[in-house]
Amino acid sequence: MNEFDLIALLTKSLPSNNSVVTGVGDDCAVLDLGARDRLILFKTDAVVESVHFTRETPPEKIGRKALARCLSDIAAMAGTPAAALVTIGLPEKFEPGFVAKIYEGLNALAAQHNVAIVGGETTMNPNRIFISIALLGTVVRGKQVLRSGAKTGDAIFVTGELGGSLAGRHLEFEPRLHEARWLAKHFSIHAMIDLSDGLAGDLRHVLKASGVGAELLKSAIPVSRAAKLAARNKPAFAAALTDGEDFELLFTVAGGGAVKLLDGWRKKFPKLKLSCIGKIVAGEGVILRDKTGAQQLNTHGYVHFA
Amino acid sequence: MNEFDLIALLTKSLPSNNSVVTGVGDDCAVLDLGARDRLILFKTDAVVESVHFTRETPPEKIGRKALARCLSDIAAMAGTPAAALVTIGLPEKFEPGFVAKIYEGLNALAAQHNVAIVGGETTMNPNRIFISIALLGTVVRGKQVLRSGAKTGDAIFVTGELGGSLAGRHLEFEPRLHEARWLAKHFSIHAMIDLSDGLAGDLRHVLKASGVGAELLKSAIPVSRAAKLAARNKPAFAAALTDGEDFELLFTVAGGGAVKLLDGWRKKFPKLKLSCIGKIVAGEGVILRDKTGAQQLNTHGYVHFA
Repeated sequence: MNEFDLIALLTKSLPSNNSVVTGVGDDCAVLDLGARDRLILFKTDAVVESVHFTRETPPEKIGRKALARCLSDIAAMAGTPAAALVTIGLPEKFEPGFVAKIYEGLNALAAQHNVAIVGGETTMNPNRIFISIALLGTVVRGKQVLRSGAKTGDAIFVTGELGGSLAGRHLEFEPRLHEARWLAKHFSIHAMIDLSDGLAGDLRHVLKASGVGAELLKSAIPVSRAAKLAARNKPAFAAALTDGEDFELLFTVAGGGAVKLLDGWRKKFPKLKLSCIGKIVAGEGVILRDKTGAQQLNTHGYVHFA
Repeated sequence: MNEFDLIALLTKSLPSNNSVVTGVGDDCAVLDLGARDRLILFKTDAVVESVHFTRETPPEKIGRKALARCLSDIAAMAGTPAAALVTIGLPEKFEPGFVAKIYEGLNALAAQHNVAIVGGETTMNPNRIFISIALLGTVVRGKQVLRSGAKTGDAIFVTGELGGSLAGRHLEFEPRLHEARWLAKHFSIHAMIDLSDGLAGDLRHVLKASGVGAELLKSAIPVSRAAKLAARNKPAFAAALTDGEDFELLFTVAGGGAVKLLDGWRKKFPKLKLSCIGKIVAGEGVILRDKTGAQQLNTHGYVHFA
C-alpha cells in the first residue's frame, strides 16, 4: 500500500465541524476561527533523518528545510505565516550543540518571514532525528487559492526551474510567499499548489481536485541546470517532472490573462523565471506535446512507500 | 543533558512577532490572529512507540491517547479545541488495518469533543510508529488561564486521583475540558496546568512561572487505587507525586474563594473528586506537611532523557 492509498483509507470519514472551510486534500487546511477579514491556515510537515536529510547534512540546513517546506504550503494558499511549533524526536545520545544548530537555521528563516516560534516539544525517537513543524498562518478571507479551481482553457504556470533538487536546492530553496501573495492580490488565480513531489505528480493533484486534464508543451518546461548536470544518471526532462522537492509554485489563470500576468511578473520579479507550460483541457490526465506530436504522459511524481 | 536543560537551551532566543500573546512555556501558545472576542490556542504533542505505548497497545487506544494528551493541554488553558492535524511516521512494513484503527480511536475522541481532523501527513519512520498531533483551539479573550498567575495565599486544587496511570488510565483518561471551562467561567482561576509529568514536577512549573512556593498537606493528596495496588513496587504516595500521565488539572484560586468553589464543583461534577491539597506561599519550592511536621519536598516529576 503506497502513501496515497493509505491517505485515501485514513481520510474516508474524518470528523468535521463548522470551523472547517477546507479540510483534508489541499496544501493547508483552511479554518474560520472568528476573525472578520481573515481565515486561518493550518499545516504540519515532517522531515526524517535518512529520508529527507542525512547525518552529513549541516544541522542549520536541516532546521531551515523543516520550516521552509511548511512555508511553501502556506505560499501555495497565498497566505502569510504567523507562528510555528517545533516537535523534535531525538535519539538517546544526541549532541545538544547539533540540536541547537538545527534551531539556528530554523529560527533564521522564521525571522526572515516574521514567523514566531512559540514552542513545541522534544521527545525520544531512538535511531534517528524526526522533526515535525506545525505552522499557522492567515489569508485574506476569500483570497485563499485551492487546488480545485482550475478551469478548461486556463494557462498553467510554474515559477523557477525544476529537477535536480537533491544536488543542493532541497536544503536552500526560498518559499515563494511574496510571489504567491502578489499573484493572488493582482490576478484571479484559479488553482495553485507547491511542487513537492514533482510536476508530474503535483499537477495531477490539481487536475484531480479540479476535475480536468492538462496539455503540457514539452519545450516550455523549465529544466534546471542541476537536472542537466545529473543527466548521466537520469534524463534531465524526467528529472524535472519527477525528482520532487522543487518547492516552486504551479498555478493556473484564465488563458486570456496569461500575457498580462507574465508582463506584470517580469517587472515585479525580474530575477525569478516564470514559465507558461501548457493549458488546462477537458477530460483527465496529462498530454505532453512536442514537435513530433502529442502523447499521454504516464510519469508520476515521487511516492512514499511505493 | 535532560529534557528541561535542552528546552532551556533551545528557547533562549526564539523569533517572535506581534501575534504572540503567550509563547513558549505554558500548556499552549496563545495567539491573537484577529478575532475580536477570541484568542487562538496552539499545541503539539507526540507519542512514540516504546516510549508512550508498546506494540501490544490496542491501536485505537494509541490514537485516542495521542489526541487526548493535546486536548488536556487545551483544557489547562480553559479553552475549546477546534481542529487537529495528525502526523504519523510509519515503519516501512506497516499494517494498514492497524493504522486505520489508530485513526478510529483518534476520530472517536475528536468527534466526542467536536474537533475536526483536517489533514496531516504520513511519512516513513523506520523502526517505530511516531504520532505527532497539532491542535488548534480557541479561548474567550482574557479568559485564558496561564501557569504564571498563582499568588501567595491561593488554595491549590487537583481534580481526580493521582498515580498508577500506567496500569491503564494513561490510555483512557478523559481530558478535563468541560470542567476547566466551567472553572474559568465561574471563578477567577489564577493558574492552571495539566498533570502530565506528575504533581511533584508540574506543580513546580506553576511555582516557577509564578515566582512563588507551595505548602502541601500530605493527607489531602488524592492517591489513586491503581497507585495503592502497585505499592509493592513503589510507595503509593510517591507514585501519586511522580508517576506522571495523570492528566488531571491542577489549579489555584484565591484562598477566600476555595469553599465556594468546592461547593459549586460538587453540585456540578458530583462524580469527579476535587481536592484542596495545599496553598501557595511566598518563596520557592514545595513544603510537605504531615502530622509529624513540615519538610522540603525533594521529589521531582518524570524527566525525559534523565
